[in-house]
Amino acid sequence: MAKHLISIDNLSKKTIEDIFNLADSFDKQLNKGHQNDLCKGKIMATMFYEPSTRTRMSFESAMYRLGGSVISSADTVTTSSAAKGESLADTIKVLQHYADLIVLRHFKDGSTLLAAENSDVPIISGGDGSYEHPTQTLCDLYTLRREKGEIKNLQIAVCGDLKYGRTVHSLVYGLAKFGATIFSVAQKDFDFPENVKKRLKSKYGVVIKNFTKLDEKMNSEDVLYMTNIMQSKKSKSAKKILKESDELFPRIPIEYFDAVYITRLQMERMQGIKSNYKSLMSYLVNKELLEKAKKDTIVMHPLPRRYELSYDVDHDKRAAYFRQAAYGIPIRMAIIAMFLGLVDFDIKLEPHQQKGIIMNEQCVNTNCITAGEENVQNKFLKSDDEENMYRCFYCDYEKVIRV
Amino acid sequence: MAKHLISIDNLSKKTIEDIFNLADSFDKQLNKGHQNDLCKGKIMATMFYEPSTRTRMSFESAMYRLGGSVISSADTVTTSSAAKGESLADTIKVLQHYADLIVLRHFKDGSTLLAAENSDVPIISGGDGSYEHPTQTLCDLYTLRREKGEIKNLQIAVCGDLKYGRTVHSLVYGLAKFGATIFSVAQKDFDFPENVKKRLKSKYGVVIKNFTKLDEKMNSEDVLYMTNIMQSKKSKSAKKILKESDELFPRIPIEYFDAVYITRLQMERMQGIKSNYKSLMSYLVNKELLEKAKKDTIVMHPLPRRYELSYDVDHDKRAAYFRQAAYGIPIRMAIIAMFLGLVDFDIKLEPHQQKGIIMNEQCVNTNCITAGEENVQNKFLKSDDEENMYRCFYCDYEKVIRV
Amino acid sequence: MAKHLISIDNLSKKTIEDIFNLADSFDKQLNKGHQNDLCKGKIMATMFYEPSTRTRMSFESAMYRLGGSVISSADTVTTSSAAKGESLADTIKVLQHYADLIVLRHFKDGSTLLAAENSDVPIISGGDGSYEHPTQTLCDLYTLRREKGEIKNLQIAVCGDLKYGRTVHSLVYGLAKFGATIFSVAQKDFDFPENVKKRLKSKYGVVIKNFTKLDEKMNSEDVLYMTNIMQSKKSKSAKKILKESDELFPRIPIEYFDAVYITRLQMERMQGIKSNYKSLMSYLVNKELLEKAKKDTIVMHPLPRRYELSYDVDHDKRAAYFRQAAYGIPIRMAIIAMFLGLVDFDIKLEPHQQKGIIMNEQCVNTNCITAGEENVQNKFLKSDDEENMYRCFYCDYEKVIRV
Repeated sequence: MAKHLISIDNLSKKTIEDIFNLADSFDKQLNKGHQNDLCKGKIMATMFYEPSTRTRMSFESAMYRLGGSVISSADTVTTSSAAKGESLADTIKVLQHYADLIVLRHFKDGSTLLAAENSDVPIISGGDGSYEHPTQTLCDLYTLRREKGEIKNLQIAVCGDLKYGRTVHSLVYGLAKFGATIFSVAQKDFDFPENVKKRLKSKYGVVIKNFTKLDEKMNSEDVLYMTNIMQSKKSKSAKKILKESDELFPRIPIEYFDAVYITRLQMERMQGIKSNYKSLMSYLVNKELLEKAKKDTIVMHPLPRRYELSYDVDHDKRAAYFRQAAYGIPIRMAIIAMFLGLVDFDIKLEPHQQKGIIMNEQCVNTNCITAGEENVQNKFLKSDDEENMYRCFYCDYEKVIRV
Repeated sequence: MAKHLISIDNLSKKTIEDIFNLADSFDKQLNKGHQNDLCKGKIMATMFYEPSTRTRMSFESAMYRLGGSVISSADTVTTSSAAKGESLADTIKVLQHYADLIVLRHFKDGSTLLAAENSDVPIISGGDGSYEHPTQTLCDLYTLRREKGEIKNLQIAVCGDLKYGRTVHSLVYGLAKFGATIFSVAQKDFDFPENVKKRLKSKYGVVIKNFTKLDEKMNSEDVLYMTNIMQSKKSKSAKKILKESDELFPRIPIEYFDAVYITRLQMERMQGIKSNYKSLMSYLVNKELLEKAKKDTIVMHPLPRRYELSYDVDHDKRAAYFRQAAYGIPIRMAIIAMFLGLVDFDIKLEPHQQKGIIMNEQCVNTNCITAGEENVQNKFLKSDDEENMYRCFYCDYEKVIRV
Repeated sequence: MAKHLISIDNLSKKTIEDIFNLADSFDKQLNKGHQNDLCKGKIMATMFYEPSTRTRMSFESAMYRLGGSVISSADTVTTSSAAKGESLADTIKVLQHYADLIVLRHFKDGSTLLAAENSDVPIISGGDGSYEHPTQTLCDLYTLRREKGEIKNLQIAVCGDLKYGRTVHSLVYGLAKFGATIFSVAQKDFDFPENVKKRLKSKYGVVIKNFTKLDEKMNSEDVLYMTNIMQSKKSKSAKKILKESDELFPRIPIEYFDAVYITRLQMERMQGIKSNYKSLMSYLVNKELLEKAKKDTIVMHPLPRRYELSYDVDHDKRAAYFRQAAYGIPIRMAIIAMFLGLVDFDIKLEPHQQKGIIMNEQCVNTNCITAGEENVQNKFLKSDDEENMYRCFYCDYEKVIRV
């Protein structure tokens, strides 16, 4: 049976470290300009149902660096059989005969898991809906290891759009796995979804420290503002600020963190939400803020950026986001080589090794692949903790079902 | 002069068998994981003016399996010079200098023949309008040979959209060439066009057995229904059903066939026809129907499918359509290798070795390439049988012309 | 520091001749069918924000002929992070880590220079806005050298859309560099922009001979008409015609020229101009005209063509435009090899070796990259000749600035 990369949770800590070590060795080879023909004769397919530069092109570049070939569908929605109404399952059942490995990006949550069920060749998630983006998280964790040495016990602030951003979902599972401390900084309506919080708690015992309300108790010395509005008040004493500030903007101290991970608003997923991006997110992280940070605090961003990250940060050495993008090549080379079985490794398959229970129930998530695909059986996994609580096999959303 | 694959009729039975034998040997190599560098240094161009997954990606995969390279235009209409109004002839005249072989898909009937007239490198049809799709037919015939041993004397039911579906047009010429018996099952308005029937008759002496009207004489024992509506009446005696049933649905006996080839409605070619796909085509072939078929009857479909083929058939061993898609790789490897002249073979060029007669007449087919291209001379071939009857050199449509 | 190809003026005459010699040797190899693995292990990225067949596919073909690999974004506007609002600078900062060389086509003037500022790998312009298209010009100059021996002192007529056509902008700089004599033939509103004329004058001392008005003094014997309307009057004596003809169509003598270079109207850049292409440009060059030309006058066109160049010229040996397209392969092989540093050569970097002066002024050109990109500093170069005159560092447009 083929091994698939659907979620960062498919990979044990040990496997992730194996990937990092392999990436290190590929990176050294690249820097020396050495050729590599590990994947000669192998074909990777990139099927992208959503726009992408970084993920698709870095996967393709990685495959070429390994001497392999690529068949590519950059705009699957309009240029493939999807335009004729073909189901994802059918597309994958065919495509598995054309390629040795498939990288899939799809707009529906859980789509890569569905693809994996229909494929005898490895499916690598290139991001699915608001669910996960595990290879981005591998780049992110690798960035932390390269730049900070060890991930354990790092204090990480995760900021921006935590609701729709799949990269931060995968990321917090990964950070939890390695024992980092996670602080979330999200404006109202953009906090982590409940299913993410529950999975963090049940799987890793992690309760995310959520700076979204002012009544969150903090030491007054720690208080510092991550928005322009707040920064303008920086001369006042922290205690005073706490009293004065409105409830919309929580405060967490920038000097407290080893890394600040910021993301853009996923406008393309916010149907019906008419928000002014600029006003919501204008320069959450900028030069002024960084002046107060530690000398070795790094700023990370999965890119592309909009207004949440100021260009005036780019020239600061602590701006790690372009290095983070560059690490995508050795990391994806390692992923390709490992999933093609060209190096030894062991993939822990959880929870996808479990079989879901087929039930005559709809998933509550309207963006779940089960709501978009014609011929999918609704499957659920039973919660260990709560009675009558099930979560969707594909997208993790919880639903109370009385059997 | 370059050799082109415009129509299945370009290939003699002998050449097709050569292609199958070559495909067999490539397939064995693939299964053993052996490398192949036959096409090293060669470049194939894929120019697709219509959406495709299977055809484009299987051609590209095949080329990479042979060690060659690919330059690809997956969405030629919007991303190429076609967007600036360039004629197909001009595009090909340039492209022939960039590639050693061109795979072309175009929305106009006869477009690949026009391309061939303007190219010094081989043009391989990837499907043109409602005209033909010869490499799909090679996959189809190869599937029959692999799964049924020999094609001669097989009883084949060809169902679905026989009017707009180019795959079935190429298919019936190929089946006729190999001596299979063809039964067509099409609802009103979706039967084979006249030009296809005439070509079958004049070239192969084949009169297609057309099950579109109930007054078609059949043994009452043979009667069996290929639609859901009919299946619901299966308890009644066949004779009685014959009397009762409406005239819309013809009946052919499923147990009579060695293979059932079904196709989807080509909605994208039905301008102005507002039809309810679901009601027209809902599960023409499903599990219930297959229960009555022979143990070794295979179900084929060029894919993608919509409602004409039920997912509940997928797990039946007789469902051959995903295997049929998989055969696309060895078949297209063989086509590429042969047309690049890397193996010996002989292409029979008929009717395209003939020169059309330039006439000051328009083709009657509004989807003919002569109606879409600026600088094409209308050319016709004289009918051997009928006086004053000509057929369009590009698209085969007949027209009475009094010279 | 990486070397970039932004403008034909980046290349000295000597360097261009080196490129031609290298192209000659690649062309010989291709004709002999010899393999070339010069670029094995190298990756080229093609990022196209505008449609293209010739430029993108010839670059990709050239890279494959050299044994390299390609990552491609044929429709960057809709399929990449640009769809999410990413700046060009950010895209390039990431992409430079995925490829060894980037070919960029962008709709804004000066975009490739901006890209170059943000890249540590070579940026090769594939055309930017109405600014320049230097590799097309290398193909054009190479065509002249191949077909006419030497470029110096050739008499070249440049016709069609000289305002929006970037290819003719690059071309006239190149022709001036090699000492050809340039005659422009453009209808009202389609003459060269002022910035092009000024650059020609200041850099090469060339004043373009502009046949856009009838009061341009000409010998009556030289008079000949480049439009259908004029040709209908050819029986009359030239002197008489001069008096009779309207002012719209200038006349230059076709027998005077060694090459006629004609271009299509860049309809896609003419926002708000509703013009009837056919009436404006109908068969500026056709068979009738060529009958009066010299036996060795060649007709060139960067393609795609519309109505300005008649198909009836195609079979004339003097029609050089498809050969011109074919030369794109050896020329682009040479460019790739040289900019990847795989052969020795010296790029003269002018004016881009200069640093622009950052000023708090907007460029006057609404299609300048500075008007489209969020985080670009407006930079200008001071005119040597005129006081208070500056030209935009990115797009060359002049502006009076009183400091």
